[in-house]
Formats: sequence, structure tokens, C-alpha cells
Amino acid sequence: MIYLDNAASTAVRPEVLREMLPHLSENFGNPSSAHAQGRAAERAVRLARRRAAALIGASPGEILFTSGGTESNNMALLGAAGAAGGGLAVVATSVEHEAVLEPCRLLEEQGCELALLRADGDGMIDAAELGPLLDGLAGRPRLVSVMLANNEVGTIQPVAEAARACRARGVPIHTDAVQAAGKIPIDVSELGVDMLSLSSHKIHGPKGAGALYVRRGTRIAPVIRGGGQEGGMRSGTENVPAIVGFGAACELAASELGTAAPRMRALRDRLVSRVMGAVPHCAANGHPGRRLPNCAHLTVLGVSGEDLVAKLDERGIAASTGSACTVRTQKESHVLRAMGLSHERISGSLRLSLGAFTTEREVDEAARILAEVAAELRRVSPFREKYGF
Amino acid sequence: MIYLDNAASTAVRPEVLREMLPHLSENFGNPSSAHAQGRAAERAVRLARRRAAALIGASPGEILFTSGGTESNNMALLGAAGAAGGGLAVVATSVEHEAVLEPCRLLEEQGCELALLRADGDGMIDAAELGPLLDGLAGRPRLVSVMLANNEVGTIQPVAEAARACRARGVPIHTDAVQAAGKIPIDVSELGVDMLSLSSHKIHGPKGAGALYVRRGTRIAPVIRGGGQEGGMRSGTENVPAIVGFGAACELAASELGTAAPRMRALRDRLVSRVMGAVPHCAANGHPGRRLPNCAHLTVLGVSGEDLVAKLDERGIAASTGSACTVRTQKESHVLRAMGLSHERISGSLRLSLGAFTTEREVDEAARILAEVAAELRRVSPFREKYGF
Repeated sequence: MIYLDNAASTAVRPEVLREMLPHLSENFGNPSSAHAQGRAAERAVRLARRRAAALIGASPGEILFTSGGTESNNMALLGAAGAAGGGLAVVATSVEHEAVLEPCRLLEEQGCELALLRADGDGMIDAAELGPLLDGLAGRPRLVSVMLANNEVGTIQPVAEAARACRARGVPIHTDAVQAAGKIPIDVSELGVDMLSLSSHKIHGPKGAGALYVRRGTRIAPVIRGGGQEGGMRSGTENVPAIVGFGAACELAASELGTAAPRMRALRDRLVSRVMGAVPHCAANGHPGRRLPNCAHLTVLGVSGEDLVAKLDERGIAASTGSACTVRTQKESHVLRAMGLSHERISGSLRLSLGAFTTEREVDEAARILAEVAAELRRVSPFREKYGF
Repeated sequence: MIYLDNAASTAVRPEVLREMLPHLSENFGNPSSAHAQGRAAERAVRLARRRAAALIGASPGEILFTSGGTESNNMALLGAAGAAGGGLAVVATSVEHEAVLEPCRLLEEQGCELALLRADGDGMIDAAELGPLLDGLAGRPRLVSVMLANNEVGTIQPVAEAARACRARGVPIHTDAVQAAGKIPIDVSELGVDMLSLSSHKIHGPKGAGALYVRRGTRIAPVIRGGGQEGGMRSGTENVPAIVGFGAACELAASELGTAAPRMRALRDRLVSRVMGAVPHCAANGHPGRRLPNCAHLTVLGVSGEDLVAKLDERGIAASTGSACTVRTQKESHVLRAMGLSHERISGSLRLSLGAFTTEREVDEAARILAEVAAELRRVSPFREKYGF
């Protein structure tokens, strides 16, 4: 199998699993327990917290472990709304992941004001629109959420610029960095964000762990309540093995970023140019320069992305039409719609996302097979005449 | 180490880990992905859902996977409140876990009515009080939450009787079965409950997974929103390895309950009688008959539970004063207070909880060491004269 769906989930690295295993066997204590087993678990969580903090230039005390990126995003938005005690105005972007948009919609139902920044044809927002928008919402508690990199097309948003507009107005800003982590350098001080979401299984860690960075002094209310773990902000026995694996994955991501990112970029560029060379009437989506190094998003005109994914799957290639989370709904991508892409261009879209294990041989093989599959599908395409396939 | 803190967390069984491992290495797909890797993950989650359902006599479609018992409890209470759209009246018990009480307190802050059923000296509620209480709250949406078995003293509540009172009034009832699962038989039809919480790591499964049973037709709103996983009720990429392990643990728990429960009961009774025989001025807490077979809760008068736990830890025995979740706060147990126990009786309390791996030799050794530790601490106890230690 050639796995080109690393934006959906990644393989756990062997080094990560090795660190996890003791916590799935002999070290099974509850970090809250006042005995040797409990203390060992607590120490392991503490190390993971330092490692997650180091990946993004934060202090360990600013890292809250969650069950994953979706929970982190919910916690940022619903937690900020809870702390505000109602009447929050939220500004997000029209290209956020559903894990940001859905909590936003809930808040809107509950009487909060919601405004979405437009994206251009590359999926990029215009950060200059944020200041005036925030000024129009002045006089009430406000929150901004701008993703660091898009999960479908990989476009990297001008988060630092958005953060400056927020800071000037005393408005906290959250960024969903789930896809960006491990692909581009992240420093919460340089970005100037107050909250930042991470997910373990997108960076070759295990599923079931994530983090929300919360800058000291940022007020949020807990979403999940109980025994008071994570400083009272996220109750529930810590998922020690997953947190340990997440910490190990963060350390690897941080230490290898300088080599992994250029390597993925070179392979991604090779993949795209081979596909574009072999498949006529093919378009690349997302910002040509400011986008994640591991992500290729293409439109193969005249065929459906679902058919492409199915045919590629038959040929042993794992790919996606877009966000895995919305595959089941078969809805048209809200991201591509927000970018103003035509129905036809959206319909033929395909996301190929590389990971730490992707090889040159795999990329070449994938390009070759994709060209064959596209040609095969186009032979029965209703658009055959239009494009002269 | 002799591990007698299975109510805090349990060792992952080797059979469970074996089933998990492929999902921590080669099978790393996202269950939402439309390719072979995704389908393999989806199938694994489906099997786990059947197994979790089978443990409690439910249909697979009534099982929602969560990150653990705390999230399940939050989802039941906050989810029901969300579906009611405000004005909910909640009846719980004064001996619930914090993961039920804390969401209840939040709902109360948000304007919901909250009533707590009293517990007697054995930690038992009187289910006959529920009907009149619910009648007094008639005319508004109502929800009842009564735990199946207490996490500190192990007392088993009359949930079926409480459920009958609810059913007669059309009021849904939730039960926190986190401690009861794998220790006593559970059948959601016999119990007559509408929601039931489970946790994986309390039944020799991994941390990071749990479930909320939601009877078909019961209305709750999602707490964590996004990509629409778990039928839209719990978004976020499924924690496949943990869910697989949880499913395996459920199957083992179901198939071995008939032998494991009597075995744990015999060992627990042996432990209690040895301790009572060797340690004068020692009392057993919780209901003498209706309580979990693996749980012993004792008061060693004249010493502090924290000192006992620390000294036992030095001697290689893992025990607890009560709920692991409240260890950090050093607060007096709200459960023991609700039972009307004196400060002195609460102060010297010790919970010893057995698991699938506990042996007779361990129990005998623990009783012997506990007697030594108690005697040692009593030599410097301020209550020495009072009791004539």
C-alpha cells in the first residue's frame, strides 16, 4: 500500500510505540494515585507536557492534554464562551475545520454573534479585514479563531498578522494548528496566539491525545468536568499511554522538522509535477507558495473525486477527496466552496498528503497509477467531449 | 508490588494489548477514510461496539464511544440538558462521582434545578424517595442520575427500582456504571436505564476509551462537535487502538464475570477478615451485602488514611484513601460525609480494590503488612490513649 492520506491519520512511529508500551503493560497507574504506580504515570505525563510545550515554544504549564484536536478546538471556543458568561462575539474563517465551525454554530444558536472571514481563491484570508470587523463588534467579549494551515488544501493563513490585529484590541486569538504541526515551525510567541490546538495522530503519534495550548492569563471554562485533572480544566483520568506517545511524537517532530519539511516538500513537488505532466486538464488547488509542504490538492477535471479515490484504493493507494471527517456526508467541501471553486472543479478534487515514511518510489508509483486511473475514468466521463479527453 | 487500587485504574490484560497492537502499528487508518486502511479501522471499531453492547445487553447502535467514563457522564448530563434546551431539573445522589456532580453543579449555575438524594450510613439511597421528589418537579424536563455502584465504598444502588419510578413518570434515567462493569452483571433492559456510562481502564482495558449507552429514542445533544463521528453525537477521530482494547476488555469481562466475581469476592472477604482480625478498632464501610465484590473500604481508627497509603506504598502496596480523582485536593470524601461518618472515621479511611490479577498470596501479604503499618502509625497516634492501642 502507498499511503498518501497523512492529513487524515498517520502511522505511529516505532520510536513512539516503544515509549508507549510500558504504559500499556507494567506502568498502568492512575496519575492521581498516591503510590509508586501513580507517581510513575504522573512523571510520564509531565515529560510529555514538556515535550509538547517545546514543539510550540510554550511553557509546560500552558499545555492542557485533551483526547484530540477536535476536543481541543471545542475547548478553545466553548471554553472561552463559558468564561465570557454569554454574549461572546466570535470571528472565525470560512475555511476552518468542522471542529471549529460546529462549536461556532452552536454558540451562534445560543445567542453569540458569529462572523466568518472570507477566503480568496487560494484559500487565504485577508488579515487586514480582521481589525475593522473586530471594531464593529467592540463593547462585548470577543474571540478570534484562524487556523494555521488548512486541512484540505494546505494553505497557511497569516495568523501572526491576525494576532497583531487581535492584540491591538485586547481580543484573544485561537489557532487550529492540527495540520500545521510537524510540517512548519510553530512558536506561540512569534505567532502571538493565546490558544493553539494540536493533535497527536496527525504527527505520527497515537490517536486519542491532543493538546490545547492556553497562554497564561487566558480565561476559559472547562468543557468536561469531574475529578479536576489538567488543573481543573479537563477532567478524566489522563490517557497516559497516548499522552506519552504524543510527547514522543512532538519531540521527534521538533527535532526532525528541519530535514522532514524540505524532504516532504521536494517529494510533494515531484508528485504534483509528475501528475500535472501526465494528466491533462488537471489543476492544483491551494496557495501556490504559502502551503504545507506535505499536502497536494488537485482537481482532475471531468471525473469525480470519489471515483478517483475508489480506483486508487483498488490499486493500493490511499488518498482522499478532502477532509476525512466529511467523507461520510458526501457533502461538497465547504472549504472549496469558500474558495469560490466551481462545482465541476470541486467535484474532481483529490487530496494527496505525504508523511514521514513517504518515499520517492511511492511518489513516482502513485503519479503513474493516478494517470492511468484518471485516463480510465475519463473514458466514460460525461465531460469527455467538452475537454476532448 | 501488590496492586490493590483497581478502582483507580487496572492493568491492561495481555489479551487486550495483543488486539490493540496492530492498530498501533500497521493498521493506523482513520475510520472515516474511504480506502482499505480506513475500512479496516472502521471494521475494528464496529467489532468493539458489538462487544461493548454485549457486555450490557444493548444494541451496538446504542453505544457511543467517548474518551472515558468522565466524558460519558458529562455527555449524559450536559447532553440531556442541551437537548432539553434549558430549564432541566436534575436529580442525582449525594454519593455520585465528581464526574456526575460537577456537570450537575454547572447546570445548576446555568439555572437548572438540582436535587440530591440522601444516602444512609451504608452509602445507600432510598429509591422510594425518588417518586415524590420527581412529582415535585413535574411540569418541566427532568433527568435522573443514580450510580450503579459507588467508587469509594462499593455500595450498589437500587437502580432498577429508581428506574421504575422514572419510567412511571416518563423521566429518563442515567447510571454511572464505571465501577460496576466487570464486577456485577449489567443488563440495560433489566435495569431499565436510558443511559449508562462505562470506562475501559477500570475493566483491564486501556485508558482513553469509554462509552455512553443511549437507549434508542433518548434525546441528548452532542458535547464535542465537529466532523460528526459517532452518529454526530461525539466528533473527533475515533481512538481506534483504545476502542479496540476496550472492546476486547468488554468481551473478557462478560465471559469471565461468572468466575471472576466470586473469586474476587472470596479474596476480598479473606482480606477484610484478616485485616479485621489483626487490626483492632477497625471498621468496614459501605453496605455489608449490596456492594462490589472487589472493593474493601475500611477505617483504621486513630491514624490518617494518607499516612496509611504512604506507609503501604513504602512497603510495596498500592492502595488509596478513596477516589483517585480527589486525592490531589486532600478534601474530605463527600461520599463518606454524605454517609454521615464522623471526621475521625473519615480520616482513617482506606480503600483496597482487587482486580483480575489479585492473588491469595497478595491478599494475605497485604493484610499482614497493613496490620504492621497500622500498629506502627498508632504508636505515635494522638488517639493512642483514647483507644488504648
